[in-house]
Amino acid sequence: MNSQLDALKFEKHTDTKGNNVEIIPTIIQDAKTGQVLVLCYMNREALEKTISTGKIHMYSRSRGRVALKGESSGHFQLVNDILTDCDMDTVIFKVEQTSAACHEGYYSCFFRQYQANASDWKIIAEKVFDPKTVYNK
Amino acid sequence: MNSQLDALKFEKHTDTKGNNVEIIPTIIQDAKTGQVLVLCYMNREALEKTISTGKIHMYSRSRGRVALKGESSGHFQLVNDILTDCDMDTVIFKVEQTSAACHEGYYSCFFRQYQANASDWKIIAEKVFDPKTVYNK
Repeated sequence: MNSQLDALKFEKHTDTKGNNVEIIPTIIQDAKTGQVLVLCYMNREALEKTISTGKIHMYSRSRGRVALKGESSGHFQLVNDILTDCDMDTVIFKVEQTSAACHEGYYSCFFRQYQANASDWKIIAEKVFDPKTVYNK
Repeated sequence: MNSQLDALKFEKHTDTKGNNVEIIPTIIQDAKTGQVLVLCYMNREALEKTISTGKIHMYSRSRGRVALKGESSGHFQLVNDILTDCDMDTVIFKVEQTSAACHEGYYSCFFRQYQANASDWKIIAEKVFDPKTVYNK
């Protein structure tokens, strides 16, 4: 029972494994700098685990299950603050990021910038870890 | 033709009017403070109009059409910077916000904060305009 979570509006979604789930988009934001790290999705179970453990758990739409962020990398996201919007259909988690958020080695997943009059997005960040040494399975 | 937009991954969605559309979630963030203002969705047309005019246009899933943000309120969002993520399935627009982002009168739509051991989300912002005087139609 958690009446604050009951108030949220989830959206029906069929994931890539064919599971019918109800999820809500969640923006993960660096608590210190305000930098947006990643957009992920949570179902009710992921929200409850995130709140009870203080570590971000997402619903992985490609894996069709709840996953602890950092379960293979050790790059956990520790929750500082939780916000929702006027429509209560989106959640922000402000977090303390361990190492980096992106599986490609960047601190934030948003490392590409739109360029006027160019054909490609520009990479505007430096990697902070080497994915090969972290995901070596 | 815009090859940067071609690289983005849109998601199939059936809106509340029954239209089948391809949309991408877009985080609108205050360029100066980093505060997240709203999460909305864009289709290709909304993205192109946003880039060509420099003003946020969203795909309104409830109205089933592209809408200029601020078309009734005058509260436009002027684009400063555009980012996308590793998977290229989410976009951030950093904007200069005119007046306020939220139709309820708050600067950001994210004005509710989760409270441990409470039954309701707490409103943590003050309104910056009175919706009655803005949406008086």
